[in-house]
Amino acid sequence: MSMLVVGSVALDSLETPFGVREDVPGGSATFFSTAASFFGPVQLVGVVGEDFPAEHVSFLQERGVDLEGLVRAPGRTFRWKGRYGFDLNEAQTLDTQLNVFGEFRPELPARFRRPDFLFLGNIHPELQGRVLDQVEARPRLVAMDTMNFWISGQREKLLEVLARVDLLFINDAEVRQLAGEHNVVKAARKILAMGPSRVVVKRGEYGAVLFEGDRIFAAPAWPLEEVFDPTGAGDSFAGGFMGYLANGSGDVDHESLRQACVAGSTLASFCVERFSLDRFRELSREEIRHRLEAFGSLTRFRELPATLR
Amino acid sequence: MSMLVVGSVALDSLETPFGVREDVPGGSATFFSTAASFFGPVQLVGVVGEDFPAEHVSFLQERGVDLEGLVRAPGRTFRWKGRYGFDLNEAQTLDTQLNVFGEFRPELPARFRRPDFLFLGNIHPELQGRVLDQVEARPRLVAMDTMNFWISGQREKLLEVLARVDLLFINDAEVRQLAGEHNVVKAARKILAMGPSRVVVKRGEYGAVLFEGDRIFAAPAWPLEEVFDPTGAGDSFAGGFMGYLANGSGDVDHESLRQACVAGSTLASFCVERFSLDRFRELSREEIRHRLEAFGSLTRFRELPATLR
Repeated sequence: MSMLVVGSVALDSLETPFGVREDVPGGSATFFSTAASFFGPVQLVGVVGEDFPAEHVSFLQERGVDLEGLVRAPGRTFRWKGRYGFDLNEAQTLDTQLNVFGEFRPELPARFRRPDFLFLGNIHPELQGRVLDQVEARPRLVAMDTMNFWISGQREKLLEVLARVDLLFINDAEVRQLAGEHNVVKAARKILAMGPSRVVVKRGEYGAVLFEGDRIFAAPAWPLEEVFDPTGAGDSFAGGFMGYLANGSGDVDHESLRQACVAGSTLASFCVERFSLDRFRELSREEIRHRLEAFGSLTRFRELPATLR
Repeated sequence: MSMLVVGSVALDSLETPFGVREDVPGGSATFFSTAASFFGPVQLVGVVGEDFPAEHVSFLQERGVDLEGLVRAPGRTFRWKGRYGFDLNEAQTLDTQLNVFGEFRPELPARFRRPDFLFLGNIHPELQGRVLDQVEARPRLVAMDTMNFWISGQREKLLEVLARVDLLFINDAEVRQLAGEHNVVKAARKILAMGPSRVVVKRGEYGAVLFEGDRIFAAPAWPLEEVFDPTGAGDSFAGGFMGYLANGSGDVDHESLRQACVAGSTLASFCVERFSLDRFRELSREEIRHRLEAFGSLTRFRELPATLR
């Protein structure tokens, strides 16, 4: 089935305890589409500047990402610079240069207007709404991401677009901020009352929790011995999640969403093992298949005989 | 099978965003034995002062805790005063008065010297070693807990006792500190090389992870909408874990330990729903059975069909 992502394509500069990288590929649409591409084709809408290296474009194309919607605009590519300490769960932003991304007005090519699955990456909620306006048939699943910047600065617009989507991907701190509620379970329930019928709370090294109605599914993160660079983990999670759904039966029932969480957690776990997209460059189907299977042994237990006093 | 716990019995004073309590029952042996008592009998060794209210003693007795090893010494009971903010994962200690606990030298009554299961609560590692010296037959499982205070101040003694036990319960921050390694997976593997063949890393609201050889099991915490007081959660986890093992087949194979993690997580989840032991006072077998079963639906997913490109 067809899948469309609209989001940022960036050049990231990173400092982690394990090294430094400059102007490596980043951005929500980049990580999402790369992760999803392991399951099937993806259409991408985004913008880069004249300085965006052709090799990154080639990489996405080779992975089966349809770049008809990737505009090359005059000027420089969106740049983000961040630093992580030993606690890799949180990034410190050192610099943000919007550049051509500041003028980004997503326009869907005609071929992209009837996606079965749609992911609205973390961009201005007004732009997320504009994308939805251009979609000509109701997708099977519309998911979105957002961030603290929009939650505090564009709350009204954010609530508008939230009411139009089926699923929100959001992290721990942001779900608390958006709901105005410290308890994550209560916070997620509040979001469910704002529009989306599913919320996936991403908790970094602790995994992710899916909320749908009264049903809750907790997926751990894969226990990694080496985490090099958490940048893009959330978008890789979403890419694995949506890619899995779009390229199986296409069903979005609760059982399929649980499996999608495991697929998302798996792709996110690979993402963070190297800088930027580097782990995805060498990632094989066999490695993914092996880790997907191993998730079972990480979480399964036999039913407990109830021997209570 | 028989189970023995040696640890603290305390009077806690607590401040949380949800209220204040003074001189309520606390201590590692108290929470452990109460949680374990839902599965079967427990023998307790500890010390209280002359001021320890008879009603707390009666409560433990009514729950089937054998208190022949609970000494009443001249002086005041061990007191701990702590505060939690909205981030209930970490306590701020406001005051510690060791009182009679400062002179505690655990002596096992003759009847208590052949336990099948032994839990060494968080006390001075030298005392934990003294308990092991008094045990006359190798238990099926010896588990211990510890804390940052002993890791930094009594490292040598701690490593000595660690080499004599089968399982270490330890929290996130402490496993990092003990192993001198930030990555939790690597840290746990280092501990496995120090003696215990199993390590259970307790991660508060994120659950617990069992490490045994190369096998890893991740148990989520039960998703609670109300967390009132996290005090005792770790000891209640250990109590549920060990109580489950001691009162089933008595096996300590890997599958049983996975189930024990779920039992531990279940008892810990009840503990934090009220202050001190209050939730355990009204907790029914049916409630425990229901939550044990519901853990299955929280974590289970169908095997993923591998449809990779």
